[in-house]
Amino acid sequence: MNDLKNRILEMVRDDLTGIEAALIENLKPNVELVSTVARHILFSGGKRMRPLLMVLCARMCHYQGDYDKTFSIIFEYLHAATLLHDDVVDEALMRRGKPAAHHLWGGAAAVLTGDFLLARSLAIAAETHNIRIIQTISEITENMAQGEIHQLMRKGDLHLSEAEYLEVIRRKTAVLFQGACRVSALIADAPASWETALSDYGYHLGMAFQMADDLLDYTDDSLALGKTVGADLREGKLTLPVIYALNAAGSEDRLRMEAIISNETFSTQDFQALITYLHRYGGVAYTQQQASAHIQAARTAIARFEPSPTRELLMDIADYTLQRKG
Amino acid sequence: MNDLKNRILEMVRDDLTGIEAALIENLKPNVELVSTVARHILFSGGKRMRPLLMVLCARMCHYQGDYDKTFSIIFEYLHAATLLHDDVVDEALMRRGKPAAHHLWGGAAAVLTGDFLLARSLAIAAETHNIRIIQTISEITENMAQGEIHQLMRKGDLHLSEAEYLEVIRRKTAVLFQGACRVSALIADAPASWETALSDYGYHLGMAFQMADDLLDYTDDSLALGKTVGADLREGKLTLPVIYALNAAGSEDRLRMEAIISNETFSTQDFQALITYLHRYGGVAYTQQQASAHIQAARTAIARFEPSPTRELLMDIADYTLQRKG
Repeated sequence: MNDLKNRILEMVRDDLTGIEAALIENLKPNVELVSTVARHILFSGGKRMRPLLMVLCARMCHYQGDYDKTFSIIFEYLHAATLLHDDVVDEALMRRGKPAAHHLWGGAAAVLTGDFLLARSLAIAAETHNIRIIQTISEITENMAQGEIHQLMRKGDLHLSEAEYLEVIRRKTAVLFQGACRVSALIADAPASWETALSDYGYHLGMAFQMADDLLDYTDDSLALGKTVGADLREGKLTLPVIYALNAAGSEDRLRMEAIISNETFSTQDFQALITYLHRYGGVAYTQQQASAHIQAARTAIARFEPSPTRELLMDIADYTLQRKG
Repeated sequence: MNDLKNRILEMVRDDLTGIEAALIENLKPNVELVSTVARHILFSGGKRMRPLLMVLCARMCHYQGDYDKTFSIIFEYLHAATLLHDDVVDEALMRRGKPAAHHLWGGAAAVLTGDFLLARSLAIAAETHNIRIIQTISEITENMAQGEIHQLMRKGDLHLSEAEYLEVIRRKTAVLFQGACRVSALIADAPASWETALSDYGYHLGMAFQMADDLLDYTDDSLALGKTVGADLREGKLTLPVIYALNAAGSEDRLRMEAIISNETFSTQDFQALITYLHRYGGVAYTQQQASAHIQAARTAIARFEPSPTRELLMDIADYTLQRKG
């Protein structure tokens, strides 16, 4: 597993360096508070997954220009803006092992810096003068806001359906991955079939990524993510492992699970008991299967391209998504 | 004064009806929470100043299409998004005589609905397929975020300069007025000289509007605005009447004023004393003069057009900006 991670990191080292440089360059001219808050969220161990996907997909489309790194920042900015606002919304304590931005600089600074990053993303998109790119970026931001709102509305609702969960993660996560992969084809002026293939790859990767992320909340690796143990549950967010297990459990065990979920101050013992139920009623296994199926679909989408080192890298990234610990 | 207001309202009645219809139409397809929160902020006595300016300026440019009302919504959405986020940022209690949205539905819903309205604005802009319009809208959002952040950074700072104040109100208010007037020329494909004239009109009108708004905090008409008396001061916002008076006062009175301003729980008596200082040291008169000068500049800009009922209406709106009580 570590071999896979190391192989990927080795292959993308130069790309990551370029993305970091573009991020630093782009943040420079801004006022102190924006720079400070934005740096805190942008330079605290993010994996640069979204800009990296954009750069690699542009390479798949034989993109020759030098705008890909600058442009890829959009997807990190949109991601960071969402994290800043989500942490305010969820009253989260920690993010990537550090205190959440709003705890250090206040909710006001976190909200406004998020607004700035959102606005900046759209300004970078507008620089391309490409209507389809601009429309894609504006659709992503709209979907992300709607996904977050949908999630907020269903907060704490024990009857959240699998279909609703899928719609929420599609909008709040998969659409951004999909957009990052799709616009690389637009920026490279690639054929429509390539755009569709990369778009499909990004969508399925994003769905699997969020499911894997949601599973991490119920493993012993929460610390590796720098998250509070059981954070999703404490925030009233029902995710697939829980939704599936609740539906599969008999009425007696369902009531026991509901009691733990509804109790805002559940103990570590309660949480361990819940994890046992999630395994017993197949919630963990089902989520793993669904994530695997999406990864398989992502691989199939990218298999339409001729073999190349970049294609293999995208395949590796898909595989690694299922295995990551943080 | 009421004559002027009534004359304006009579002239724009059909336009306002069209703008209201477009707003209602555009909000329809959204989820319940977004609609509820957005309706609260959008349909609580807003004057529709920004969309109205866009529609009237488009008429100045002989715009013949039927997209002006739909497009004008952008400026009301951007305004509403800012109000939602600002009220969270400022921990404001009231807005237009009603409880602020975050008090009714929580900060989370207010932040996310603001994000949605921001995203929706950009989606409507993208529908025009006009790069200059899209760039103008993206520049407006960037400036507004930066203006708000600048204001936040200087919160409670007794040494805020007039130049900094002007820069803040330019970004957070005037740029939006300016943009609403400018894009009407772009949507009508009008000559560059018309675009400049309308842009200048909007800029000066916006500067005067904000100065007049800041003055209202120090008059007896706060109740008409549905604001808390002395709200700006309680939020640590120094505006032109205070900045000017602080600089004009002798050191003894300056200290007295600073004591009131720095005291977060100042009494009504303290506040009345401060208003007396603002008059004594010319803060009120100076702000009125500066606002008047901007209105004069707005009138001069629009005077470049041939006389017409719409031009007279824009002149009337400029004059009314100085006189409004809410």
